[in-house]
Amino acid sequence: MPNDTKLDEDLIEKLQDIANKLRIHSVTSTQTSKSGHPTSCSSIADIIAVLFFYTMRYKVKEPKDVSNDRFVLSKGHAAPILYAAWAEAGLFPVEKLKTLRKLDSDLEGHPTPRLNFIDVATGSLGQGLAVAAGMAFVGKHYDRAPYRVYCLIGDGEAAEGSIWESINFAGYYNLSNLCAIFDINRLGQSQTTCLSHNLEVYQKRLEAFGWKAIAIDGHNIEEIANAFNTAATIEEQPTALIAKTLKGKNFPNIEDHENWHGKPLGEHTEEVINHLNSLLKNHDTSQLHPREPITSHIPSVDISQIKLISPPSYEEHDTVATRYAYGTALAKIAQNNSRVVAFDADMKNSTYSEKIKEVDPSRLVECFVAEQNLVGVAIGAMCRNRTVAFVSTFAAFFSRAFDQIRMGAISQTNVNFVGSHCGISVGKDGPSQMGLEDIAMFRSIPGSTVFYPSDAIACERAVELAANTAGVCYIRTTRPKTDIVYSNDHEFHIGKANILKKSSTDKVLLISAGITLFEVLKAASELDKMEINVRVMDLFTIKPIDDRSIIKNAQEVGGRIVTVEDHYPEGGLGEAVLSAVAEERSVIVRKMAVPTLPRSGSPNDLLDHYGISANHIVKTAKLILTL
Amino acid sequence: MPNDTKLDEDLIEKLQDIANKLRIHSVTSTQTSKSGHPTSCSSIADIIAVLFFYTMRYKVKEPKDVSNDRFVLSKGHAAPILYAAWAEAGLFPVEKLKTLRKLDSDLEGHPTPRLNFIDVATGSLGQGLAVAAGMAFVGKHYDRAPYRVYCLIGDGEAAEGSIWESINFAGYYNLSNLCAIFDINRLGQSQTTCLSHNLEVYQKRLEAFGWKAIAIDGHNIEEIANAFNTAATIEEQPTALIAKTLKGKNFPNIEDHENWHGKPLGEHTEEVINHLNSLLKNHDTSQLHPREPITSHIPSVDISQIKLISPPSYEEHDTVATRYAYGTALAKIAQNNSRVVAFDADMKNSTYSEKIKEVDPSRLVECFVAEQNLVGVAIGAMCRNRTVAFVSTFAAFFSRAFDQIRMGAISQTNVNFVGSHCGISVGKDGPSQMGLEDIAMFRSIPGSTVFYPSDAIACERAVELAANTAGVCYIRTTRPKTDIVYSNDHEFHIGKANILKKSSTDKVLLISAGITLFEVLKAASELDKMEINVRVMDLFTIKPIDDRSIIKNAQEVGGRIVTVEDHYPEGGLGEAVLSAVAEERSVIVRKMAVPTLPRSGSPNDLLDHYGISANHIVKTAKLILTL
Repeated sequence: MPNDTKLDEDLIEKLQDIANKLRIHSVTSTQTSKSGHPTSCSSIADIIAVLFFYTMRYKVKEPKDVSNDRFVLSKGHAAPILYAAWAEAGLFPVEKLKTLRKLDSDLEGHPTPRLNFIDVATGSLGQGLAVAAGMAFVGKHYDRAPYRVYCLIGDGEAAEGSIWESINFAGYYNLSNLCAIFDINRLGQSQTTCLSHNLEVYQKRLEAFGWKAIAIDGHNIEEIANAFNTAATIEEQPTALIAKTLKGKNFPNIEDHENWHGKPLGEHTEEVINHLNSLLKNHDTSQLHPREPITSHIPSVDISQIKLISPPSYEEHDTVATRYAYGTALAKIAQNNSRVVAFDADMKNSTYSEKIKEVDPSRLVECFVAEQNLVGVAIGAMCRNRTVAFVSTFAAFFSRAFDQIRMGAISQTNVNFVGSHCGISVGKDGPSQMGLEDIAMFRSIPGSTVFYPSDAIACERAVELAANTAGVCYIRTTRPKTDIVYSNDHEFHIGKANILKKSSTDKVLLISAGITLFEVLKAASELDKMEINVRVMDLFTIKPIDDRSIIKNAQEVGGRIVTVEDHYPEGGLGEAVLSAVAEERSVIVRKMAVPTLPRSGSPNDLLDHYGISANHIVKTAKLILTL
Repeated sequence: MPNDTKLDEDLIEKLQDIANKLRIHSVTSTQTSKSGHPTSCSSIADIIAVLFFYTMRYKVKEPKDVSNDRFVLSKGHAAPILYAAWAEAGLFPVEKLKTLRKLDSDLEGHPTPRLNFIDVATGSLGQGLAVAAGMAFVGKHYDRAPYRVYCLIGDGEAAEGSIWESINFAGYYNLSNLCAIFDINRLGQSQTTCLSHNLEVYQKRLEAFGWKAIAIDGHNIEEIANAFNTAATIEEQPTALIAKTLKGKNFPNIEDHENWHGKPLGEHTEEVINHLNSLLKNHDTSQLHPREPITSHIPSVDISQIKLISPPSYEEHDTVATRYAYGTALAKIAQNNSRVVAFDADMKNSTYSEKIKEVDPSRLVECFVAEQNLVGVAIGAMCRNRTVAFVSTFAAFFSRAFDQIRMGAISQTNVNFVGSHCGISVGKDGPSQMGLEDIAMFRSIPGSTVFYPSDAIACERAVELAANTAGVCYIRTTRPKTDIVYSNDHEFHIGKANILKKSSTDKVLLISAGITLFEVLKAASELDKMEINVRVMDLFTIKPIDDRSIIKNAQEVGGRIVTVEDHYPEGGLGEAVLSAVAEERSVIVRKMAVPTLPRSGSPNDLLDHYGISANHIVKTAKLILTL
């Protein structure tokens, strides 16, 4: 199968030398750090040598240049050999490798973009291929550029379903610029992998998913190099190299042995280093330079200052679902910037991401019902600022990709997530479809911004703000239609709440957002009739939260707050408010939330049944006056 | 391929009649509810008819009898036809079908175990097969019983990686008692599925994963029945029926049309019902009874009152990691009850679940690196109280299965989750391996219990308590070794905190758990030297939280609380405490947590760098005295 171009013998020996040098660095740096995965590095040393010193086109000194081939190390625990490859290629001194895993070094235990040659963090297994597929999708369909994307996957992580979602995606979209390498070293962390060294099964599986699959000896430089050459000639299919390797290759008494996962070599170090040195033919590998990238055909892209092409335009008595307003705003920013792209998981007619198709059908990437890959592809698509990615599905189903979102934060991604069908206001479909923990989930992401727009105008502005905000942004949208409460020209800011009702005689501060804001407003009217004046605050963003305004308004009403949310009581809007007033003496908070597992019913019946309707808010406001 | 036993023509016609009756019920009930998925029901009507009235062995009036064949409707949105099948089989009156999706009816939009014939909730796609595989694993390996497990999967959800994790698992463990039916109706929610009607590709994929795969016409009663008969004869392999079907089958002008997902038929209802009635041959289907199950060979099982076979036994100066104590306790309860089973994702030598192998190697189910399937399998294994399941991996990686855990709560599961390697005290491996949002995640699960044991003794008791506690239990364990703080005979209770240090002159209440408790204890000693007495509380369970004790102790020290946790600030221990004191005037709380994305380093360096070490606690305690 491999393309049988004969490699120069001298080149082969040089690449072998590089591979063994990378092994030496991996052993030395993990031994210095007293932790790490040298055996997992060794199995891929020959592949890495060929990739970085023969196959890939890239500028060593500009590792994130748009024209470079991309490389994603999905098996992130093999980080030391990746660091060693960049050092040997000349990006930084090899001395620095000894700082591995130290607090003041960016050479972390697993790769993160603190390093200028890393696009995305890896280390939670099975996530690299989705990201690589996102990069390849952009390369093929938007950049239409010659760069290629390589992704190195461990055989242990090949059991992750996320990998198969990505394999399906890449096969469906014929991502011929994507090449995955499976490092089949047979040994997982605690035992043999499911398929051991059975390359044929891997090959059959990948072929059934539409890939070209080439089985190779992962320690034969020539076979590896030829297979990469062949891969580059395959049209309309992604290619996988199924590489038979040995964990701890070239480590005497360790190679292919169990119980050597994630362990530095300790007392074996000297023997192994001596052996590796003895294998070196001592060629001058400093003459091995990577190939230059093809720099033409790369469009320049500016994704700054994204704007709605026209301001929100609603009538006072309109009723509009915020999920619908998301679609409207998405189309508006897509008209403003050609790199705004939407990703969806066969929900586009419910989340309304499909409205971007009216602007440009090619900018809706259908990822089918596979939310882990959905998120990974979007993270990949945003790398090197090639797109502004909006990802939508039901709020509940982002829980499927929590790990990808978590890793996205470590990857410093700017992906925007839009979760529709939040809370019990989903209604008759029942609890499986209701996002009731999504605020808790997205709040826990470091550096995240959590929008919870209450009307269509707020939602359009949330979309615009998210497009321009660094870090993970989440916009929570609601299924039912709701009233318009803001004027079309209202200015929204991240971290700034809005007071919708206020008087000098207010006794309680009601804080809410989304569907329950309308229950709060109804309750406030009822309370007015009882001559109990209450103040109403709409948070707009739950994170960051407007601490100052909450504290100030709470103090003005005598220290009584009631929060109302269509979410479980833990980690949501109520606890965000509690954190804001944590150090305020004489402020008390009564949290109203969905207290228990809900069931099917009409939205209004459910709001009432689970105690977050106007009726219950009236009672609670009266109750808190007695505390 | 199908077994060509000739079915009696009369039987075929009866089954066809049943299928069309089920279609009529599906149309009527969704039309009455004005919501639901009649076309998704219709594509599987013939399969359901054969399963419930010909193939499956079960007692209609005892739907959860242990001897019954199991059925999991993975495509939960087709719930109306499942309800109709049980009604037609005689479990409840068909009249009740019209209460579909009403607040006071258990016939919810998607199946939940509020119904006595449902083992697990479905509706979030791609989860049924893992659960079915768990049931089949128990049937084959623990019960060694003749019941079979059927799982019906939609083609849209076949894009979910979780499905492929389960396919891999079932193939690896040769679950010949498992039969999956893929309903290949070609149409997803918003467009054609990836593979449309390409049955051959499905077949290749399944065969590559070690399954017997049989392609059939999913509307041909005889083919369906014969394929099920064949499946029952396959040894050492699970079987998949790849059924070519039409969405909206037998609905004139709707069958196989797009844009009919999730919509009742409205004005088309009458025409469709008339047509379906015209297809009925009006056989007396009431004579069609399901086959009786084989009731012999089912061992009786008692999973109540699980105990540690011996109490914790540590010396005062021992240092033991709580993750290690988990392994110890797991082995102890496994000796006490033969149905205690552990599930792990190739982490057993890090989580220490491997210690159960010393008791009985067959009770460690290696699920490989596939956390979604891991959780689903455990949920399936616990159904009908056949096992006490403990699931372990790194705390961070449970985020991979958040949706499965969320659905587990809707399924009323009692699975116990044990997450090791929590927080920055993981150290050099870096943020990808650190569980810093796990408390937030598990707190948000309705009805959950969240244990955070601080020493080995507390951890052993947490395991024992979890084994006997209904609902989702989570035990958070720590990587480094820590001191013993409790006596071996200390009694632990869910929702009861322990005061570890107390005096009548205390000025601050320090609340913590886990690794940071030891920092708190160090800080308390330091503060003592400065003549600032502080009280130290160890929560033991974060949910339920000991509100009363927190409030009482806070009041006794003058209303100043400092919380310390190795977790992000959102949704964790600190916010749990804030919720506990939300309505207390004159109590203030300073939350100490990991404020930002951490990096690699030694555990102690990281605790200090991110501001949760003793040193910082001392400063904060002094600071809060000024507030």
